[in-house]
Amino acid sequence: MLLVTFLGTGGSLPTKNRNPSAIMVNRDGELIMFDCGEGAQQQMMRAKTGMMNLSSIFITHFHADHILGIPGLVQTMSFQGRTEPLTIYGPEWVEEFVKLLSALGYYKLKFEIRAAKMERGDVVRMDGYSVVALQTQHNVRSIGYALVEDPRPGRFDRKKAVELGVPVGPLFSKLHKGEDVEVDGRTIRSEDVVGESRPGRTIIYTGDTRPCKDVLEASENADLLIHDGTLADEKLEWAKEAMHSTAGEAAALARKAGVKKLVLTHISSRYSDDVTPLMNDAKAIFEDVIIAEDLMSIEVPFRDE
Amino acid sequence: MLLVTFLGTGGSLPTKNRNPSAIMVNRDGELIMFDCGEGAQQQMMRAKTGMMNLSSIFITHFHADHILGIPGLVQTMSFQGRTEPLTIYGPEWVEEFVKLLSALGYYKLKFEIRAAKMERGDVVRMDGYSVVALQTQHNVRSIGYALVEDPRPGRFDRKKAVELGVPVGPLFSKLHKGEDVEVDGRTIRSEDVVGESRPGRTIIYTGDTRPCKDVLEASENADLLIHDGTLADEKLEWAKEAMHSTAGEAAALARKAGVKKLVLTHISSRYSDDVTPLMNDAKAIFEDVIIAEDLMSIEVPFRDE
Repeated sequence: MLLVTFLGTGGSLPTKNRNPSAIMVNRDGELIMFDCGEGAQQQMMRAKTGMMNLSSIFITHFHADHILGIPGLVQTMSFQGRTEPLTIYGPEWVEEFVKLLSALGYYKLKFEIRAAKMERGDVVRMDGYSVVALQTQHNVRSIGYALVEDPRPGRFDRKKAVELGVPVGPLFSKLHKGEDVEVDGRTIRSEDVVGESRPGRTIIYTGDTRPCKDVLEASENADLLIHDGTLADEKLEWAKEAMHSTAGEAAALARKAGVKKLVLTHISSRYSDDVTPLMNDAKAIFEDVIIAEDLMSIEVPFRDE
Repeated sequence: MLLVTFLGTGGSLPTKNRNPSAIMVNRDGELIMFDCGEGAQQQMMRAKTGMMNLSSIFITHFHADHILGIPGLVQTMSFQGRTEPLTIYGPEWVEEFVKLLSALGYYKLKFEIRAAKMERGDVVRMDGYSVVALQTQHNVRSIGYALVEDPRPGRFDRKKAVELGVPVGPLFSKLHKGEDVEVDGRTIRSEDVVGESRPGRTIIYTGDTRPCKDVLEASENADLLIHDGTLADEKLEWAKEAMHSTAGEAAALARKAGVKKLVLTHISSRYSDDVTPLMNDAKAIFEDVIIAEDLMSIEVPFRDE
């Protein structure tokens, strides 16, 4: 499972229908977040994403609308009995932010919050995937993230394994994992019964940014690109000034990178009730695009399934 | 107008239907808040209370569920162009909290936030009313508040004023305000045409507390008592330990004080979907009781209207 749930899809000003930025990713039961705007904990309850298996929060930048859900969330997890540490990753200033967290009221957290500073190219190894920091372009220190799954083993040729005399059972699993095995004194090589390894899935999340090179390169053939789509194309000058992207700009980058699916988020409050201008701009350039909505979930499939 | 809107009515753990504690009071267009839990700004949008006329926030104590809506709210008001200062009142530690506020991210507020420490008996003079700090009993430093309107002038005896030869017009207003006036060389005394002054309205808000003496005394004949009603009576021992009140305890205090209406709030997550146990406990003791719900509004009338 690789399920992306949009907890908050609004811009700097939330609206009654759009919370500030927060995205939950559930990968085979492990939860990680990208940004955590105010109200994220209640959105988790509404979307039934769960909360206690959250291992990490990856912050793109320290604007209020991307971080203010953290104090309440950690307090609630502590009330619920959490003892596992939580790691907050982010650009410069993440250590200071985590220090402030514990000073913000009468907190007595029952678990540890670790701060981990990241900059362009830094890689966090997770169980079966990595999260890589990308350089984005916003008006404060900012990074984006690529979630890159490890390659999967190639397909197992069960018929050939049987023909080679491998008994059905645990040896199949060893061969599939890449180990050679012995059967009746003969060596059966993994590569004879397992096809070429297949790529895992890739999700790119930009946070707030102008369209930029690092995101474009990381997005090549990505399964899902979640891009800043704050404004319609007619507001291009405003987007440049505020260091955001227009829907058309994000779509152009998605097309150039050959991503499978594009989701626009960080939707300006001016489009809260009607995203038609954004959709029109994006669809003109890239067909497989969705304008994110709060509590929307997207399952990311393997390309060959 | 004296309109009370409940923005958040949940306990320490918010639920999908109940935000953390936050109450908005609109008195003739001026807005003040009592507590400001996470998500308050979006609740204001949903309840259409307005936001920019907010002059003051009165914090009962610095537990997370009573304060975490402030950082996002002030950020949004700044984005919207607010330049008027905002005063945050609260018990000891309010100055430190306000300092932390401005350190919590890349904030550039366009208006000033003033901190004002209050303790039992302190009075804040507002335009036409006062807010008085009450001593409450919680497990951290805490206070409650009484909103006490100034007395209103007595009824104006228009018929008698005409009989005394006062011409209809501005002199009526002067007399009603308490000024004596001259008509054809005669002095007309205000007290001859204006009845006894009538009391204004009173609202008591406890925040989190055990039932206590100061709240009881301040609540005498109050128009509206908003009391901690976290738990049902069967959880009395738990309420004592966590320094909250049961519904029955709050109702008993309301009856003893002779309040006109009781609202229970800070509802434990265990009753989020069904408040029947709380309602049963309270109704058995005090008839005019409401269990608060998010986005509920109550207009507080004058007793003689």
